[in-house]
Amino acid sequence: MDSEIMTAAIEVPRGLKDVVVTTTALGDVRGTEGFYHYRQYSAIELARTRTFEDVWFLFVEGHLPSPAERADFAAEVAPLRALPDQLRAVLPAIATSTTPLFGLRTALSMLPSAPMWDAPMAQRRADALRVCAVTPTILAALHRIRSGAQPLEPRDDLSAAANWLYMVTGTEAPADVVRAVEQYLISTIDHGFNASTFTARVVASSGADVVSAITAAIGTFSGPLHGGAPDRALESLDLIGSPEHVDAWVRARILGGDRIMGFGHAVYRTEDPRARMLRDIAVTLGGPLVDFAMTVERRVVELLEELKPGRSLHVNVEYWAGVTLELCGIPRTMFTPTFACSRVIGWSANVLEQSIDTKIIRPIARYSGPHAPMPVPQAL
Amino acid sequence: MDSEIMTAAIEVPRGLKDVVVTTTALGDVRGTEGFYHYRQYSAIELARTRTFEDVWFLFVEGHLPSPAERADFAAEVAPLRALPDQLRAVLPAIATSTTPLFGLRTALSMLPSAPMWDAPMAQRRADALRVCAVTPTILAALHRIRSGAQPLEPRDDLSAAANWLYMVTGTEAPADVVRAVEQYLISTIDHGFNASTFTARVVASSGADVVSAITAAIGTFSGPLHGGAPDRALESLDLIGSPEHVDAWVRARILGGDRIMGFGHAVYRTEDPRARMLRDIAVTLGGPLVDFAMTVERRVVELLEELKPGRSLHVNVEYWAGVTLELCGIPRTMFTPTFACSRVIGWSANVLEQSIDTKIIRPIARYSGPHAPMPVPQAL
Repeated sequence: MDSEIMTAAIEVPRGLKDVVVTTTALGDVRGTEGFYHYRQYSAIELARTRTFEDVWFLFVEGHLPSPAERADFAAEVAPLRALPDQLRAVLPAIATSTTPLFGLRTALSMLPSAPMWDAPMAQRRADALRVCAVTPTILAALHRIRSGAQPLEPRDDLSAAANWLYMVTGTEAPADVVRAVEQYLISTIDHGFNASTFTARVVASSGADVVSAITAAIGTFSGPLHGGAPDRALESLDLIGSPEHVDAWVRARILGGDRIMGFGHAVYRTEDPRARMLRDIAVTLGGPLVDFAMTVERRVVELLEELKPGRSLHVNVEYWAGVTLELCGIPRTMFTPTFACSRVIGWSANVLEQSIDTKIIRPIARYSGPHAPMPVPQAL
Repeated sequence: MDSEIMTAAIEVPRGLKDVVVTTTALGDVRGTEGFYHYRQYSAIELARTRTFEDVWFLFVEGHLPSPAERADFAAEVAPLRALPDQLRAVLPAIATSTTPLFGLRTALSMLPSAPMWDAPMAQRRADALRVCAVTPTILAALHRIRSGAQPLEPRDDLSAAANWLYMVTGTEAPADVVRAVEQYLISTIDHGFNASTFTARVVASSGADVVSAITAAIGTFSGPLHGGAPDRALESLDLIGSPEHVDAWVRARILGGDRIMGFGHAVYRTEDPRARMLRDIAVTLGGPLVDFAMTVERRVVELLEELKPGRSLHVNVEYWAGVTLELCGIPRTMFTPTFACSRVIGWSANVLEQSIDTKIIRPIARYSGPHAPMPVPQAL
């Protein structure tokens, strides 16, 4: 036994739950208050009052832009949206190999970016901006190739949200749809210290480059336990089909030990503030899907209170994000990619913040196998 | 303030140092003893007495193979070495875009693999075996394309180490060279809970797929703080040039606050057991580079003891790995890729072990910015 190392070992809850791994000035989630913020501002208030580009700037620079800063930032970012030439030729092969999300990882993995350990901050920042700016272009191109259509060039005359809708659907969306998607995008840029953000920071702590950190985060983001996949909640609505089936479906799921997708959250003990905002947006857009979703939400919350009393299970962001993106004409296969378009900005900001810390993130494992060393038996 | 969450926060040392994040039956490092093991066996003893395929089997199955198991495993793995057709056409574009290591990440990212959360263990195991088996084929193909040569098909009549040398250099290596590379590969499959292994486990803990975990690990592995890059130590030998320059060079580096690449280790307080084994191997292979490396090692250790007394700085694995791989005819750009060929087996075993744990690894961050919420100023 290595007594020195054994003595130093620090025991913490499973999954590092509640363990403070770093400090951040990027924001926080206050689960019991049903509140989260980006820097010193309520994320929901930012989503209700600001553009996506303003909030992106806030993450990068630490403050909201002046008119001159806004113009400079737009001019800096616009050329970074274009698909790099070395990707254009291989995107068809990438598009057919896996999902758009993994296709994004493959494509980003081909872009040059400098190991942050050696690179000046201006280089790290430039690498991060490029990754964020090109992500929607890559994702929309992959989608269109998979749909048998030609990828569209990004349009500098459109906002980030309008351009995203245009590149995915091929048509310019009405203003209320653009604004709905923009508010969704703003509200999902960051959300405290989630698992994909942590992954990005672990990679960054080794001194690796921005692309390495972001491609790693995409892997965790794809994990079924990560949360935030808005298409899953819509599947629940599909399976329920009509209001009179809610009770039977919910009871069967819960008695079968299954979760009801779209309800409950790891951190919020109140209603998810993102769900509330997106429900408001969906109601304004209106239509039969919204009415059905309202009815189902009301009844599921009642049934959860009856079947799991005291658990305070509320609707979560996935549920109303799914309804909103469906109303906005985004195909379901592009729900999670839409989420990636905003979250990549949160990851990048975390990566740049982590790159200032020179300490690698490297916990230890406790060996639990048979006593070592045993003699190696002779090969037979 | 969210008093509930603040109260629960657990403070630990920076970088999660000495924090126990999981248990593992795969092995451990005992830094003060200068000893590390794979399962219950000394890793060095395995490297001295077994084949790479036997130790790979040990990681996958938990025991050393019987003759029948060895034959079955070889038959299972052989077809997995072949380059998948969907990669063949895009490898030239991947090869020219970035380094072979990032090219490996790009190529692996295109392979299908099942989210581990839903997949049966047999599927996870199959995905892991495929990633490990195809990694040398991809890396060697990328190298040959970058060198203007045609990729070579893997040869089933050669051992993993012999096949690696053949695919990289285009010729069959002599038995002592094959065995030297095989021992290097065995000794670098795993090494306790390093940062890339931790990264792979974080991704796996989200329920993601094997490819997501391995591609993420590659990112951390590329980080300058990860360690293990054998080409860096050789660069020191190049810079020193001849024995009479050792003193001046080492003194200048240390007075300048620089590290001497190839010396010192985060965990070992004794000589690195891998360095000792690889030095033995290098001495057996012999030649002027080995004599020079021996002289430099002796003098650098003396100087470090003089200039940094009590630090007990020894030669590390990078130093003698660099010399050994150079003697074996592996190009320096392929040193780290050679390391990746073995470490991918360690990552995969860690990923499969982590996939049995259903708890996501998600620590928290402490918000350190200005008090929130501040009202969002009106956009100008």
